[in-house]
Amino acid sequence: MPVGRQPLHGQVAAEMRKAIARGKWKPGAKIPTEPELTERYGVSRATVRQAVAALRAEGLLDVRQGSGTYVREPQATVDAVFISRTVHLASDGTFTCPSGWEAKEKATAYAVRLEPCPAALLRLDEGEAALLVDRLIIHQPTGNLARHSMLLPMERITTTSLAAEPDVCATEAYRQLAAAHGPLMWDDGVTARMPNPDESATLRVPAGSPLLITERLTQSQSGERLMLETLTTGATGIHMVYTHHPQPAD
Amino acid sequence: MPVGRQPLHGQVAAEMRKAIARGKWKPGAKIPTEPELTERYGVSRATVRQAVAALRAEGLLDVRQGSGTYVREPQATVDAVFISRTVHLASDGTFTCPSGWEAKEKATAYAVRLEPCPAALLRLDEGEAALLVDRLIIHQPTGNLARHSMLLPMERITTTSLAAEPDVCATEAYRQLAAAHGPLMWDDGVTARMPNPDESATLRVPAGSPLLITERLTQSQSGERLMLETLTTGATGIHMVYTHHPQPAD
Repeated sequence: MPVGRQPLHGQVAAEMRKAIARGKWKPGAKIPTEPELTERYGVSRATVRQAVAALRAEGLLDVRQGSGTYVREPQATVDAVFISRTVHLASDGTFTCPSGWEAKEKATAYAVRLEPCPAALLRLDEGEAALLVDRLIIHQPTGNLARHSMLLPMERITTTSLAAEPDVCATEAYRQLAAAHGPLMWDDGVTARMPNPDESATLRVPAGSPLLITERLTQSQSGERLMLETLTTGATGIHMVYTHHPQPAD
Repeated sequence: MPVGRQPLHGQVAAEMRKAIARGKWKPGAKIPTEPELTERYGVSRATVRQAVAALRAEGLLDVRQGSGTYVREPQATVDAVFISRTVHLASDGTFTCPSGWEAKEKATAYAVRLEPCPAALLRLDEGEAALLVDRLIIHQPTGNLARHSMLLPMERITTTSLAAEPDVCATEAYRQLAAAHGPLMWDDGVTARMPNPDESATLRVPAGSPLLITERLTQSQSGERLMLETLTTGATGIHMVYTHHPQPAD
């Protein structure tokens, strides 16, 4: 093994990368054991471990406890899609979300009572009256389907026309809520879980793929919680993107 | 069926909710067919469909194509955890992230070459030299483990002490990058995927649970991309929270 200016473990890692790149070590196959690698490269066991850790961090190797170290199978190549979640406000009071989502079906509105979790997020009592507007939407650039729902507590919308006509798009709901409650801000919480069979079928999520779920709480500047939206879509390749700046520390 | 002021489908939905709440319709069991419900409630098939759609939207029923409609099994109750991803900047130039993450182990730094995807995100050429700083961190309030990595392209850090000492925490990296490149902003992309066996073991992710992954791109005001961070953690119950305000539409 040539001795250069790079640290030893870096040289060993480079040799191992070559073995993978050239197909000498095949995807899914077990690589030689630590003692074998120690002998092959004429280095200490600690150096081999550092090299393996580096390739593991790069996603090239999988260490399976009690079994050995394997060359990771290349992931199915998925074009990453970046969907901006920024909301824009024009001087005429209209909101836009330049994200490429469009309604796939007419929205359906239901009168509901707040379940415990949404009630807690909206800081209202469980069982209070609300309207739930539910629709299937499609991300035109990619064809990804999503379920979008808006949960509107009645007491926040009594002075708006949402009370009578709730089945509008989110940006129109923002416009009406801003007219009634003043400037808006949002807290978006992004999480993921596995779909149930109904969701897999409706959203055409590939088997074994998780859902990416965004819960967006629309708030007034005084912190009053006005609406809870949920956007549910297959996660594969999708990134929900938030642009942010440092906030003053106090 | 009593005729009240509520629309018919709302009354049917209320009856169905009661059947579920009282355990007459058990979790996981198939509910009566549309014709049976039509007869039972003495309403039209369209009304039954509206009621079923309402309970489906509320997460109480699952419609399985070609099989029937089932009472949804209650999800294992998971306390939702909301982790703010806001970065704060104090007047002395120090950054803080009040998110409760702490280092679980000493960071390891590697010299790497940029792979195609990170290179594209950083707007640099594939194969350019970079430092990868990798560590296991723990979310103290919940005990959730996460892997955190920082990918620092060499040509962005040559004038900083990160080139010699990259194994600092992210907020210290921000401080040094801001000193060298001016005010910072971030694009965070949140996605999810299933873990590989190595990740499941390291992050102690329950079987069948997805990972929640945040890729954060640190940028200067002129749009130069300075660092790519990746935060990988089990998704169950975790929400990554972004607070945002409307941006001017132009």
